[in-house]
Amino acid sequence: MSEAVFNSRHFEVETIELAGKTELFVRGGRHLFSQLPDAFEGVDRIGVIGWGSQGPAQAQNLRESLEGSRIKVAVGLRAGSSSMDEARAAGFSEEDGTLGEMFDVIRSSDLVLLLIADAAQAELYPQVFDALKPGATLGLSHGFLLGHLANQGHSLPAGHNVVGVCPKGMGPSVRRLYEQGREINGAGINCSFAVEQDVDGRATDIALAWAIGLGSPYTFLTTLVSEYRSDIYGERGILLGAVWGIVECLYRRYTSEGAAPDDAFIRACEAITGPIARTISSSGFLGVYDSLNDAEQQVFARAYDAAYAASEPLLAEIYDDVASGAEILSVVLAGERLVKFPMPPIEGTRMWKVGGDVRARRGSYEVPLDPFTAGVFCGVAVAQVDLLIAHGHPWSEVANESVIEAVDSLLPYMHARGVAYMVDNCSTTARLGTRKWAPRFDYALEQQAFTAIDSDDGGSAGAHALQNFSAFERHPIHEVLRAVGKMRPPVDISVK
Amino acid sequence: MSEAVFNSRHFEVETIELAGKTELFVRGGRHLFSQLPDAFEGVDRIGVIGWGSQGPAQAQNLRESLEGSRIKVAVGLRAGSSSMDEARAAGFSEEDGTLGEMFDVIRSSDLVLLLIADAAQAELYPQVFDALKPGATLGLSHGFLLGHLANQGHSLPAGHNVVGVCPKGMGPSVRRLYEQGREINGAGINCSFAVEQDVDGRATDIALAWAIGLGSPYTFLTTLVSEYRSDIYGERGILLGAVWGIVECLYRRYTSEGAAPDDAFIRACEAITGPIARTISSSGFLGVYDSLNDAEQQVFARAYDAAYAASEPLLAEIYDDVASGAEILSVVLAGERLVKFPMPPIEGTRMWKVGGDVRARRGSYEVPLDPFTAGVFCGVAVAQVDLLIAHGHPWSEVANESVIEAVDSLLPYMHARGVAYMVDNCSTTARLGTRKWAPRFDYALEQQAFTAIDSDDGGSAGAHALQNFSAFERHPIHEVLRAVGKMRPPVDISVK
Repeated sequence: MSEAVFNSRHFEVETIELAGKTELFVRGGRHLFSQLPDAFEGVDRIGVIGWGSQGPAQAQNLRESLEGSRIKVAVGLRAGSSSMDEARAAGFSEEDGTLGEMFDVIRSSDLVLLLIADAAQAELYPQVFDALKPGATLGLSHGFLLGHLANQGHSLPAGHNVVGVCPKGMGPSVRRLYEQGREINGAGINCSFAVEQDVDGRATDIALAWAIGLGSPYTFLTTLVSEYRSDIYGERGILLGAVWGIVECLYRRYTSEGAAPDDAFIRACEAITGPIARTISSSGFLGVYDSLNDAEQQVFARAYDAAYAASEPLLAEIYDDVASGAEILSVVLAGERLVKFPMPPIEGTRMWKVGGDVRARRGSYEVPLDPFTAGVFCGVAVAQVDLLIAHGHPWSEVANESVIEAVDSLLPYMHARGVAYMVDNCSTTARLGTRKWAPRFDYALEQQAFTAIDSDDGGSAGAHALQNFSAFERHPIHEVLRAVGKMRPPVDISVK
Repeated sequence: MSEAVFNSRHFEVETIELAGKTELFVRGGRHLFSQLPDAFEGVDRIGVIGWGSQGPAQAQNLRESLEGSRIKVAVGLRAGSSSMDEARAAGFSEEDGTLGEMFDVIRSSDLVLLLIADAAQAELYPQVFDALKPGATLGLSHGFLLGHLANQGHSLPAGHNVVGVCPKGMGPSVRRLYEQGREINGAGINCSFAVEQDVDGRATDIALAWAIGLGSPYTFLTTLVSEYRSDIYGERGILLGAVWGIVECLYRRYTSEGAAPDDAFIRACEAITGPIARTISSSGFLGVYDSLNDAEQQVFARAYDAAYAASEPLLAEIYDDVASGAEILSVVLAGERLVKFPMPPIEGTRMWKVGGDVRARRGSYEVPLDPFTAGVFCGVAVAQVDLLIAHGHPWSEVANESVIEAVDSLLPYMHARGVAYMVDNCSTTARLGTRKWAPRFDYALEQQAFTAIDSDDGGSAGAHALQNFSAFERHPIHEVLRAVGKMRPPVDISVK
């Protein structure tokens, strides 16, 4: 997967070396918006279907990027959808033909961006495929549907271009950084793109125009299979599920060692969503390690090593379940259950209440970069990286799904609003996955990592072989993060 | 499924009313052993393949039941299997043709009991099917293989009888109660049986003879699909996975309320594996409730109600994952991973160490039947019952997979050796399942049940509608347990 190539008639294709592998990418920016109508050859109407996380962001960004051109952006929703009012408030309207019933919009669009929830895609895809007009291109922002089609033994619609553009951040981040991009050219969320079917030679440029229109500063090539595997795996891991599990078991550990609840929460959670995320974002995992003194580095190393060992089998299990279709089948089955049993919020427990109190008095306390917490977090993250690499994912994707989306998109939101808020407000597929896997990380870390650490003779790192940590300082992820770090947007996201 | 019928040429078929449904069963006992050779018409050699949990029990029980008859019982194992010595120690030997390489034994047997691990069945079934001699009957003690065949789009071997006999307890219990049955006729583990293919009219009697030969006091009809769904679901639920999760979250709750670790463990764990299990075994869920005073009954009711509500969606998720094949696929995929990452034991954490200390000083403390613990345990168990009934499982199976196997087989073992020991020493499918679902029960109970209870005004049960508990006192499970309680073996299991 990692040495795939592509050509564009409208945009410059550049190359980058990542850990010895060459990847191709296209640079974005507002100065390219004037070229979008040409790249969108044959597309006069873009239908954005759905108003969940990505829908509002993509519809508004594309409308703004294409303002004044021949291309109209319309939003399509279920008849009677409660999101109609939100779409109207964002300026889409039935009167000017930019808001309508989803199948009407699908039938009238040249590019259909299918951004409805995964379960709805699984249910409605036959009707959606049937409604595509001749020559229309189908666009996906996530490969979930491909996984479901594989489980069903079905195929993408014959005779249509099918492309993917997958922003490496949730919808609100895609919108927020695009807005910041009005002031600072290049601000936006990076995307990966995929060409699954190209029936008339237009697919690659349509996909690239879509990505650039969303504000993507750097757009990398992938496949939708590679995308959905890494994405669903990643959000069950260090992007979301593992973070929750890590915070739970660290909070318990610190309180059981005698820390006051507030202090335990600051060390277990605020440290991750605050200084650890910020340090990784600016200077990588090595930046975290290098910021510690000698004694702290020993604590970090031992925690890293044990957390890596405890999470590695669990990450392998998640990857296998995702790649085999079992996890996707489980998500599809959940659709019906959720009607009867909506997922209750998780934020009622003592720890999250302590977290709310802690956030309410921000500024009155220091958030130390706790070396034990940092070691656990980094150990799990690098184990996640290694498994994706072993499965052949391109480095750009690995870095995004294991590090960049975490530290530049999700953790800042969690810092502002709480991990529990994030868990309760992500996509249904992610919410199901976090509930499924967070407790597993919690148990694995407590049962295996912490018991291993606590049974060390004298607790010194030197007494233990530190097999996993021994690969840390020369790990290729550091070089990759330095390289792709230069491809970050020129501003940090500002969470409102 | 619940009104199926069958006929036997050799054993008396009796009926029982369970909650308004009629079920058929066959009574066992040592006085029937002399009829086994006739019922095993055409079977001169029984090959027991595998030496895991069921293999040693079934091979030894059948050999003893058929002693002096024409029928020989042979054990077949992988060449070089480390279990060869154990089989020899149990009196099977290459010299007299009762021990050999598994495919040699399969090729030479008229009844092949395939008792190798689920993952091995999934891997080897094509060769096993090919090796069956003409006219041979294939016997399974678990429907896992049928679930795997469905996932693969494959079928049972054409032209062969295929029957299932599924003891409602793990192998060591099947052996131990059979041994106790030497003194007290009728002691043994109940079985369900299934006839999946009957090509020559012998299948039903072969299955019944197998069950009676194992010592089954009462043998009920089911199908292997119904069996594996209820079995895999049940062990992930209240039989094993849920017990572990319940103990973890209750122990945390009690210690966080100020209980000393020992006392918290006694209330959270010893209460379940001791008095709660014993009381349910002798007088059902109502017996537990009736043994409490008024104030305790209120505590029970509130805990029951909230635990039922919190576990219901999770139980529905487990059932869906099992019935759809996703859970079975996940287990099969684990086979390869386990070579690289063996499952580490769970018993290293503080709580299980406390548990070991507590067990070591048995007799020096009282184990109270804690009403909160009892409410949580019974709420989860009855939610599990209701879901199986909603899916059409026969009451005999529901009672076994949700109550009887728990209180008469697994919980007594856990009481003797610890929950962690049990989790680390059950079948691979069960071990994988407990690791997967125990943490989910823990989180669901803490996040939903306990937060709901703690947010009650004044904490009195009256303040809350107790919707789930309102069905408890008139629940049909009580009548069913009374009826099948008369079909329990005449002695309690004595765990060595």
